[in-house]
Amino acid sequence: MYIDINCDMGESFGIWKLGLDEEIIKYISSANVAGGFHAGDPHTMNTTVALAKKSGVAIGIHCGFRDLVGFGRRPIQLSAEEVKNDFIYQLGALREFGKLYGLKIQHVKPHGALYMMAAESEEISRAIIEAIQSVDPGLLLYSMEHSITYQLAHELNQPVVAEFFADREYDANGKIVFTRKVEEKPNSKEIAQKVLRAITENKVKTVEGVDIPIKAETICLHSDTPGVLEIAKEMSQTLKDKGIIISSFRDRATIDSLPFQ
Amino acid sequence: MYIDINCDMGESFGIWKLGLDEEIIKYISSANVAGGFHAGDPHTMNTTVALAKKSGVAIGIHCGFRDLVGFGRRPIQLSAEEVKNDFIYQLGALREFGKLYGLKIQHVKPHGALYMMAAESEEISRAIIEAIQSVDPGLLLYSMEHSITYQLAHELNQPVVAEFFADREYDANGKIVFTRKVEEKPNSKEIAQKVLRAITENKVKTVEGVDIPIKAETICLHSDTPGVLEIAKEMSQTLKDKGIIISSFRDRATIDSLPFQ
Amino acid sequence: MYIDINCDMGESFGIWKLGLDEEIIKYISSANVAGGFHAGDPHTMNTTVALAKKSGVAIGIHCGFRDLVGFGRRPIQLSAEEVKNDFIYQLGALREFGKLYGLKIQHVKPHGALYMMAAESEEISRAIIEAIQSVDPGLLLYSMEHSITYQLAHELNQPVVAEFFADREYDANGKIVFTRKVEEKPNSKEIAQKVLRAITENKVKTVEGVDIPIKAETICLHSDTPGVLEIAKEMSQTLKDKGIIISSFRDRATIDSLPFQ
Amino acid sequence: MYIDINCDMGESFGIWKLGLDEEIIKYISSANVAGGFHAGDPHTMNTTVALAKKSGVAIGIHCGFRDLVGFGRRPIQLSAEEVKNDFIYQLGALREFGKLYGLKIQHVKPHGALYMMAAESEEISRAIIEAIQSVDPGLLLYSMEHSITYQLAHELNQPVVAEFFADREYDANGKIVFTRKVEEKPNSKEIAQKVLRAITENKVKTVEGVDIPIKAETICLHSDTPGVLEIAKEMSQTLKDKGIIISSFRDRATIDSLPFQ
Repeated sequence: MYIDINCDMGESFGIWKLGLDEEIIKYISSANVAGGFHAGDPHTMNTTVALAKKSGVAIGIHCGFRDLVGFGRRPIQLSAEEVKNDFIYQLGALREFGKLYGLKIQHVKPHGALYMMAAESEEISRAIIEAIQSVDPGLLLYSMEHSITYQLAHELNQPVVAEFFADREYDANGKIVFTRKVEEKPNSKEIAQKVLRAITENKVKTVEGVDIPIKAETICLHSDTPGVLEIAKEMSQTLKDKGIIISSFRDRATIDSLPFQ
Repeated sequence: MYIDINCDMGESFGIWKLGLDEEIIKYISSANVAGGFHAGDPHTMNTTVALAKKSGVAIGIHCGFRDLVGFGRRPIQLSAEEVKNDFIYQLGALREFGKLYGLKIQHVKPHGALYMMAAESEEISRAIIEAIQSVDPGLLLYSMEHSITYQLAHELNQPVVAEFFADREYDANGKIVFTRKVEEKPNSKEIAQKVLRAITENKVKTVEGVDIPIKAETICLHSDTPGVLEIAKEMSQTLKDKGIIISSFRDRATIDSLPFQ
Repeated sequence: MYIDINCDMGESFGIWKLGLDEEIIKYISSANVAGGFHAGDPHTMNTTVALAKKSGVAIGIHCGFRDLVGFGRRPIQLSAEEVKNDFIYQLGALREFGKLYGLKIQHVKPHGALYMMAAESEEISRAIIEAIQSVDPGLLLYSMEHSITYQLAHELNQPVVAEFFADREYDANGKIVFTRKVEEKPNSKEIAQKVLRAITENKVKTVEGVDIPIKAETICLHSDTPGVLEIAKEMSQTLKDKGIIISSFRDRATIDSLPFQ
Repeated sequence: MYIDINCDMGESFGIWKLGLDEEIIKYISSANVAGGFHAGDPHTMNTTVALAKKSGVAIGIHCGFRDLVGFGRRPIQLSAEEVKNDFIYQLGALREFGKLYGLKIQHVKPHGALYMMAAESEEISRAIIEAIQSVDPGLLLYSMEHSITYQLAHELNQPVVAEFFADREYDANGKIVFTRKVEEKPNSKEIAQKVLRAITENKVKTVEGVDIPIKAETICLHSDTPGVLEIAKEMSQTLKDKGIIISSFRDRATIDSLPFQ
């Protein structure tokens, strides 16, 4: 049994550091590399791709709103055309650094408010999917199972991966409770068990206290969640103990092991 | 006889328009597309590449300092590493839009103060050339014959094209007199003759009033020079009247016609 | 009879010019000076305040979202705290340039999407009003009569001025039809008559073809409306011909002539 | 005997934190508040001024180049006009937050590369001093004794305070050795003794190993120097043990105790 673990990376900016990339990368299989609009800059992108290469981790473009001061967590009403062009720009920038290190881009993951808005909007989801299909249709799109993005990707034959959030709460509709910043340090053992259950049983307990079915083909960790490193370690060990192989989609042995086939 | 004419394009930003791209593109063969750091944005880049495709014009990355408010015309002391990473980022962004329209990138032209600083600095020239060679060594570098950039490119076997500035004055050292903004409208007939002479006789009269030898393999027009459209028309007609074919390097019939062979 | 005419000014950015400030300022009494977030920069702000001083025009802070590439016309979900702090920052910047030229700040006018979102949101309107009252409660707030901003300002005893848009259409609810960009050139004579009627009869014909009552204490012109200069001239002459004095609130002879008394 | 200790503050940006402002402020008397160009944003500025108010610390504007990604530590060639306008803009923004908390601005300290370039350039120093004198001539300018800024301020009757850098090395010319980032953690006891000696004996040992005379009217600590908090504590205690009162200029009992009288 395989599972992908992804984490946002390269979200520093200039002198300002964010995240424990060098530590966390040991426990993940896919890095969502900030594209420079909500976070990241060319120097940071270079460092991050080099780190991914060295660590055997796949890369994806983490494209967000052009809003550094808001870290891409403030909803902005863009036109579909703006969504597309912002995406293509950031994708290309990352691809060039990938070329420098011999890494292809594996996936696309919208960031923050863009991710959440896409999940609720056919127009934004369509803009992202069309942008992917216009330049590189083989890229995997990461989104939540219970989202318009996920549904529409299926309809448009875009490979899409169901993402489960280790460090976020779910509601009875299968949606995560969005927050601009997690303040309290979550319990890492509880998270590890929640993730294990999502992977093996496809279930999660919601904030309302009920169980709902949930797909978990990739697990997401947020680099600014308090105690994220501890969570990463605990989760990684818990999964390995159950014989689950942490592996990016790029690295899967056979095409049949890919979830979106 | 062939000549390339290049012009900076895509230098609008958001609502702010700069340049008469749709008009000028009729008279040039190579478009230097702003990379988004000194000017340009994803939407503008998309529009510009689409326009180049439609117009049969080759594209190159016009990479400048990350200084929108200064339009990349204020010298900034970057490290070689920063120069490289900023370049790769912008190059990749443009390449992705090129892919969208089936256009390969032909050339690299540093913008404004970066161009001028590189011309005087081995460190910056080396950073740019190494960046090119690390991702796409076949790209043509545009620079002035009398520059460290041009010299070093030759030494490092980087294809380099000698650029002649139609709308700038030269001094006795073969250097152009840098300015952040040309205020007066130059005489288009004089410019056309100056360009013709540079191409056919390899000579230019300097601000000191003497003739110096000068190489002119590509001719540069600045989109914010007053009267640029008139200059473009006049120059284009003057060259055609002499049987000179305006053509990008990408479009030359035989490899032998390329100047840097 | 007095009327104030306001126009957005100082909306250039770096090398990029927007608006015909030097021409339009002859026909207005109050300049909404861009604060640097949606448009404007320190150099432009300096030039604009100098121009207002020279032209005898009052100044106000035109504060928008921090979104240069979107020109502040894309709705962004900010917290009330962010709205306040962004406002205070831009207000202070303008006030310092005002000090340089001996000009006090007369008014506050939110820009673009912030203006429109405030009109519909008590939270945003409250944030703006509280910010004003925390640093300079005498500033006049410009908003539309049919807006939450206008209502709440009255409730909170904030002097507020009912703004009528010369170059926008109204609907039957008294709201203007928002657009990111006016593409067609409006008819200046029709606009002049519409404005005259709004001032003297307090009526406007809506897009649905019905008349509604409307307050018009200040008239707004957008600097990027096609043909704005012609509109400004026509409107100004039409009003003067009817004996209406174009005058900022700062310049009114008596306190009794102020609309919000 | 009095001494002022200043530290750069408010240099976070959006989600990115920098400096231990809440800790360090206990040991200083003057806060250099980032103006938003090299670091800082309206929210951070608000928080920082509130903290200064609560801590009884005086505030000054820390104005840097408009270069967030370079943190204002990359030299940029600005015109005198640009230096002035950038300064006035940032000063005004801070003044408005000061008004919110009942704090006047005490001083002006250019940041990073602007500080170092001013120290070597009459044009830049003059631009800064003229800008101060155009809006608030009573503001104290912080600079090094061995700088053109310091000299010129004296000539132009601008109150200027001689700054001694606790965490930087000096050379035999009395200049500090500039660095974009201090990597190693300095010895806090050595620094405390170096500072004590500069204050009481007006001497410092240079990197060449010789003693030179040095004025020290304010002591600067950099918030991103490794171990800065330890240095602040050690230095503060060492000075207090010698009966030296740490006090901003704003808080000095008599005008005679001010160094620049």
